[in-house]
Amino acid sequence: MSVLAVGSVAFDSIVTPSGRADNVLGGSATYFSLAASYFTEVRIVAVVGEDFSSDNDNVFKKRGIDIRGIQRAKGKTFRWGGHYLENLNEAKTDFTELNVFEQFKPRIPPEYKDSQFLFLGNIHPSLQTTVRSEMDGVRLLAGDNSLARAARKVLDMGPQALVVKHGEYGATIFFDEGTFGSGSHPFRAPALPIEEVKDPTGAGDSFAGGFMGYIAAQGELNREVLKRALFYGGVMGSFTVERFGTERLQSLTKDDIEARFQIFRELTHLE
Amino acid sequence: MSVLAVGSVAFDSIVTPSGRADNVLGGSATYFSLAASYFTEVRIVAVVGEDFSSDNDNVFKKRGIDIRGIQRAKGKTFRWGGHYLENLNEAKTDFTELNVFEQFKPRIPPEYKDSQFLFLGNIHPSLQTTVRSEMDGVRLLAGDNSLARAARKVLDMGPQALVVKHGEYGATIFFDEGTFGSGSHPFRAPALPIEEVKDPTGAGDSFAGGFMGYIAAQGELNREVLKRALFYGGVMGSFTVERFGTERLQSLTKDDIEARFQIFRELTHLE
Repeated sequence: MSVLAVGSVAFDSIVTPSGRADNVLGGSATYFSLAASYFTEVRIVAVVGEDFSSDNDNVFKKRGIDIRGIQRAKGKTFRWGGHYLENLNEAKTDFTELNVFEQFKPRIPPEYKDSQFLFLGNIHPSLQTTVRSEMDGVRLLAGDNSLARAARKVLDMGPQALVVKHGEYGATIFFDEGTFGSGSHPFRAPALPIEEVKDPTGAGDSFAGGFMGYIAAQGELNREVLKRALFYGGVMGSFTVERFGTERLQSLTKDDIEARFQIFRELTHLE
Repeated sequence: MSVLAVGSVAFDSIVTPSGRADNVLGGSATYFSLAASYFTEVRIVAVVGEDFSSDNDNVFKKRGIDIRGIQRAKGKTFRWGGHYLENLNEAKTDFTELNVFEQFKPRIPPEYKDSQFLFLGNIHPSLQTTVRSEMDGVRLLAGDNSLARAARKVLDMGPQALVVKHGEYGATIFFDEGTFGSGSHPFRAPALPIEEVKDPTGAGDSFAGGFMGYIAAQGELNREVLKRALFYGGVMGSFTVERFGTERLQSLTKDDIEARFQIFRELTHLE
């Protein structure tokens, strides 16, 4: 089954304690679609400017990603600059140049309409940046400081499952009991303790790509698939942070991914 | 094998978003020894005042804890008062009355000398409070913001294994490769998402009690034992926070503990 990603494609300039990278390919839809491409068919809707080269196109094409939905507009591609302090948990924005992204109206090509899975990345980054800086994730939506209680409140709003990401501590998925049966305990997947996080940019979108890509490739969506998907999300996020930008995501093999999956398993499984 | 706990026994007055409890039995050695008592023989060295009743003694005796090392001194027992804000992650101290604890000199009874495991709780709480408020755990000791790199630096200082606690996200154990063989990946145990944390006081000491108590009961100390011990630490911490003070820890059964252990397993194990 196929996944449709709608979000930003950008050129990022990133400074971390490990070094810097200027004008590297980034954006939520980029990280997501590269990560998901290792599992399933991926289509992307985004906008780029006249400075977007065929080399840039090829990053997607090499991974078999359908880029017919990438619109070309007059002007420059969206640019973001940011840096991370020592703890790497928070990005500080140095500049945001919306450029062609300012007038972006997502248009879904007719041949994409049958996509079974949709990933909505950041649509209005300047607006989202403001909103995000003021909120602390799901707890604000639910108005509750207990993670477990907040999760139940969000599930009561309609979704059948809810993933809460914890950065370097992994992620938890909560299940709606109406869908998955009573006594459906939450499930927690770890993140890998990594000695040198080169650049945390895109880790969350890569997580989402691995998570959704794996699900789309299974053909059924049950509790066990969601649990494994949470592990694959962590796996893809752990690769991304090892290099600047999308570098590591561009050159993985299935074996790399399976080997890392086994490490994640050993990280939490008792014999 | 037996565990010796040296630390504080106190009367705590605690305010949390769930309510309050005044002058309830607490202290690091108390939480630790109650938690460890479900697994192995426990001995305690601490000091209490003239206000420490036989009812208080009985809390330990009912759990079979050897309290011959509890010294009786003239004056009042150590008292601590604190409160937790909405997120429950940080205790704010309202008052500290050291009382008999101020002159506490731990004396190890001769019959305790054969203890194979030692837990060192807080010895100088006023000093420790100051120091702890200024540091962020192991990262300061290692002078490093990468958890994995910091862990390796601490292991290089001598210990064969290092446990790093992550509060509501569980704990990670790092292994010295010289002892456990190269390629000894770290291991991460979860914490249980709990809808209502009534009182987080003592969760860490209860974790330590479950962790060390389980190890002491095994007779051998290998990687698999340490991994399971990390789970049992989380299990005992999860019980403690369900009630104020040590209430929940006083009345557990082996079945309660094994049932909770299974929930922890389901929380992270793929089929």
